[in-house]
Amino acid sequence: MPATTAAPATPSGFISPADLLTHWQGHRRLTRRVIEAFPEDKLFTFSVGGMRPFGELAAEMLGMAEPTVRGVVTGEWKQYAGARAASKADLLRQWDESTRQLDELFPRIPADHFKDTITAFGQYTMPVHGIILYTIDNEIHHRGQGYAYLRALGIEPPHFWVRD
Amino acid sequence: MPATTAAPATPSGFISPADLLTHWQGHRRLTRRVIEAFPEDKLFTFSVGGMRPFGELAAEMLGMAEPTVRGVVTGEWKQYAGARAASKADLLRQWDESTRQLDELFPRIPADHFKDTITAFGQYTMPVHGIILYTIDNEIHHRGQGYAYLRALGIEPPHFWVRD
Repeated sequence: MPATTAAPATPSGFISPADLLTHWQGHRRLTRRVIEAFPEDKLFTFSVGGMRPFGELAAEMLGMAEPTVRGVVTGEWKQYAGARAASKADLLRQWDESTRQLDELFPRIPADHFKDTITAFGQYTMPVHGIILYTIDNEIHHRGQGYAYLRALGIEPPHFWVRD
Repeated sequence: MPATTAAPATPSGFISPADLLTHWQGHRRLTRRVIEAFPEDKLFTFSVGGMRPFGELAAEMLGMAEPTVRGVVTGEWKQYAGARAASKADLLRQWDESTRQLDELFPRIPADHFKDTITAFGQYTMPVHGIILYTIDNEIHHRGQGYAYLRALGIEPPHFWVRD
């Protein structure tokens, strides 16, 4: 292609929205494996140092992920971190439903909206990318605690670097 | 500005490189506070479930962060995760030096390079954004384990959401 017709470089930012969703869903597949690794009787009862059991932490993740992205897309904010789960099977069922919802909703965020400052859930004012990264980071953070719980139970956690 | 002279919308991706560095340094400030929260005699000895003590985890973070970004910028890859620390003061000194190095190196990554696939440290083949996110995610993951260690020690960890 002659140099004169080449489009000027248009930086696509650090990462494209599509690749960020792929990255997040990879993390969510790993978190799902961590949920599965817990014995049913420990998922909602066991913890370290008085922290919440992993079942509660995973329910918090559920109550943040889809409601955050839905709020970004629609401007309507549901209860923050309000999800609850009654069993491992219920948690996994809700997890898979959330996966489908995120795949449907995330691509509907306009490409130029991620830098805009919004107020999420009536109280968190920050750029759209900041709200979404907070949700992902919170999942990684609490999942790291879940690894500590599994190790304390003598259970080998799934490999951190496997995301497929 | 007349509509006819407005530039077409050029999506800047999910997040700009500059904002991603700010986000990462916010995480690194939080991790520094977690290092500080450990008693000197527990930082390199205490853990949960046979995992590595937090001092070792933090040294791993040091050995990934600056060497990864320096490799992306220069194409020269140092030893991966090879950092060591002999004391809390030594760890914090290296942490602050890493902070300065990242602030100097990261802006030197060309804006159109983040999507390129490279082989880091001679063995990790993925896009530049993937290698950098892996480094940040690994820090959040292990810091979450550090929170569990602090709670098990009866110490209140720093607030997850404070990044300044």
